[in-house]
Amino acid sequence: MSKSAGLAGVIAGQTAICTVGHEGKGLHYRGYTIEDLTAKGCFEETAFLLIHGYLPKAQELKSFKAKLIDYRHLPAEILRVLELLPNTSHPMDILRTTVSLLGSLEPEGDDYSAPEIATRLIGVYSSALIYWYHYHHHGKRITIESSADTVAGHFLHLLHHGEVENYALMEKTLDLSLMLYAEHEFNASTFAARVCAATLSDIYSAISSAIGTLRGPLHGGANEKAWELIRQFESIDEAESAIIEKLEKKELIMGFGHRVYTRCDPRSDIIKSSAQQLAKANNDKILFPVAERIENIMWAEKELFPNLDFYSAVAYHFCGIPTDMFTPLFVIARTSGWAAHVIEQRQNNRLIRPSAEYIGPDLQNYVPIDKRG
Amino acid sequence: MSKSAGLAGVIAGQTAICTVGHEGKGLHYRGYTIEDLTAKGCFEETAFLLIHGYLPKAQELKSFKAKLIDYRHLPAEILRVLELLPNTSHPMDILRTTVSLLGSLEPEGDDYSAPEIATRLIGVYSSALIYWYHYHHHGKRITIESSADTVAGHFLHLLHHGEVENYALMEKTLDLSLMLYAEHEFNASTFAARVCAATLSDIYSAISSAIGTLRGPLHGGANEKAWELIRQFESIDEAESAIIEKLEKKELIMGFGHRVYTRCDPRSDIIKSSAQQLAKANNDKILFPVAERIENIMWAEKELFPNLDFYSAVAYHFCGIPTDMFTPLFVIARTSGWAAHVIEQRQNNRLIRPSAEYIGPDLQNYVPIDKRG
Repeated sequence: MSKSAGLAGVIAGQTAICTVGHEGKGLHYRGYTIEDLTAKGCFEETAFLLIHGYLPKAQELKSFKAKLIDYRHLPAEILRVLELLPNTSHPMDILRTTVSLLGSLEPEGDDYSAPEIATRLIGVYSSALIYWYHYHHHGKRITIESSADTVAGHFLHLLHHGEVENYALMEKTLDLSLMLYAEHEFNASTFAARVCAATLSDIYSAISSAIGTLRGPLHGGANEKAWELIRQFESIDEAESAIIEKLEKKELIMGFGHRVYTRCDPRSDIIKSSAQQLAKANNDKILFPVAERIENIMWAEKELFPNLDFYSAVAYHFCGIPTDMFTPLFVIARTSGWAAHVIEQRQNNRLIRPSAEYIGPDLQNYVPIDKRG
Repeated sequence: MSKSAGLAGVIAGQTAICTVGHEGKGLHYRGYTIEDLTAKGCFEETAFLLIHGYLPKAQELKSFKAKLIDYRHLPAEILRVLELLPNTSHPMDILRTTVSLLGSLEPEGDDYSAPEIATRLIGVYSSALIYWYHYHHHGKRITIESSADTVAGHFLHLLHHGEVENYALMEKTLDLSLMLYAEHEFNASTFAARVCAATLSDIYSAISSAIGTLRGPLHGGANEKAWELIRQFESIDEAESAIIEKLEKKELIMGFGHRVYTRCDPRSDIIKSSAQQLAKANNDKILFPVAERIENIMWAEKELFPNLDFYSAVAYHFCGIPTDMFTPLFVIARTSGWAAHVIEQRQNNRLIRPSAEYIGPDLQNYVPIDKRG
């Protein structure tokens, strides 16, 4: 493999949106630390910051939240398509197709451009995904209105019909998680969105590219894999011996380490704290302790730290979220970052067109088809 | 803008599929020159070469062509969605959505993987696009069978209902054009497909990313722009003075020059010859001479040569193809190259995740919302 494989460490452009791995451990969105944003703000504020470039005033945040509520509605055409799609569909395919369809139904133009469309998408994703889910899994056409005034709350209301214990703690956890997943510099899906935007294509194309790219198990799928790991153990001791055995066999343990962070993932402690509160509220004696034991073993044996995906998986489980909706939640969050990058790419655009090192055959003699042996 | 903006000249990986700009002017697919392939073969052979890695024997080509014919059918769900999509849709959105839907309806798996799905898509694109087109523009539900045994022929049959003068010459031209557009190394849309595939996402996601990326006017849209230029002139002299005026105003003339070729685009002469034959068959005294005069002026004034898009526009016009189907034809062709790159990326995969140069604000103090001025 050539030195530049995967473009690791190669500067592919400039950005003013995010710094990842500041001193090996920090994450800033437009100069604000993720600790400040999550301790003092909400997802809607973070999304506004990313899309519009500054923290909103009270009236701006109020308008933005009202718009996100207005934008929850689904066009009749999309409802019909969601009913046509099979119940075996990958939920990421539901979101990718919804975005692609909206690109035809509500096209981008001078009066309806990237910041507005990003808001539309963040508003509508939960409606599309959960409408499809209840229709195909429970035979129900749900109403896609809810009394929740947050993106996190709307998701939970549609999923659980509002009837659920520990709702406030779940909403707070999901809100935190959306902030933590909102933006991460030139990660693969964001880079895909920029490659697309750089041809001056529309934002729907850029975001459907990003969704398709996030869909891969090496990217957005990691929190689902982390959950598959954690859920299989019935005791701390069982987890410990199994993880040690996996490490001896050099198996990959999902949810640990990071290409950019070297010392820790600053998002992990934040979501871990929420996961722990939810575990306590659920009187859990297994899942959280198992997760924490795995964390300790990974550090002791490999000096590897949990990344955002690891405790997010535990937190999502206690929010009653089906495993294959973990990555779609990542989409809801990251659309704010993707949109910010599309807007930034357009401001100082150049086509993204790298070169390749050729390792194929030399000039070949064309043999007529009836002479090919 | 930083030095690496657009990754120009940066090696982003290895490939054995294609060399572009060999000695500044050559194009080889897997070692075969584009001149050999177009003079002696057909699009189906080229697509097989790209997807499977070698030139097919007679029986293999026969089977591949039969499969492309089988794969023309559209699932009932797709027919319904095509009817739901507005007549104002961008044809590239129709193809992107069709691919996204097929990803749910006929998902990739161990028994139905990239080479097969690429063949399916190349077979079905014309059916989807032209069904949508006739339904919304002429109020007709066309049958999507045709007697044509080539991809080019199927497209023309569906578009023109088989009733058309110069059909053989049109089919030959379209077939050539599909070969010329089939593959071009790490161009933006192919690179987008590889970025997506490198997360180990499915091929539908990779190809819908590529379609969305090709949609941009700086990439696939160039042949449409070239046609908008050529069609506006009613005489050679008018074209000449207008082009000189545009050059004096430093306006961009679409269809000329190339980031990688330095001496000429080897594809241009091939498609120019077909465009000329079609012009003659149509007794044209304006369009082809105007195009040729523009070519001569661009060389004399700027030493810029026409790229593939320039004469393709003229050729497509004489095939009776609506302008906004020019880029969709590019999709039909390039899917063979995209698929080859997805398959190659998976064989020696590494996540494509570059870095960014941060040019944003330093650490910001978080001001509570009611104190923001």
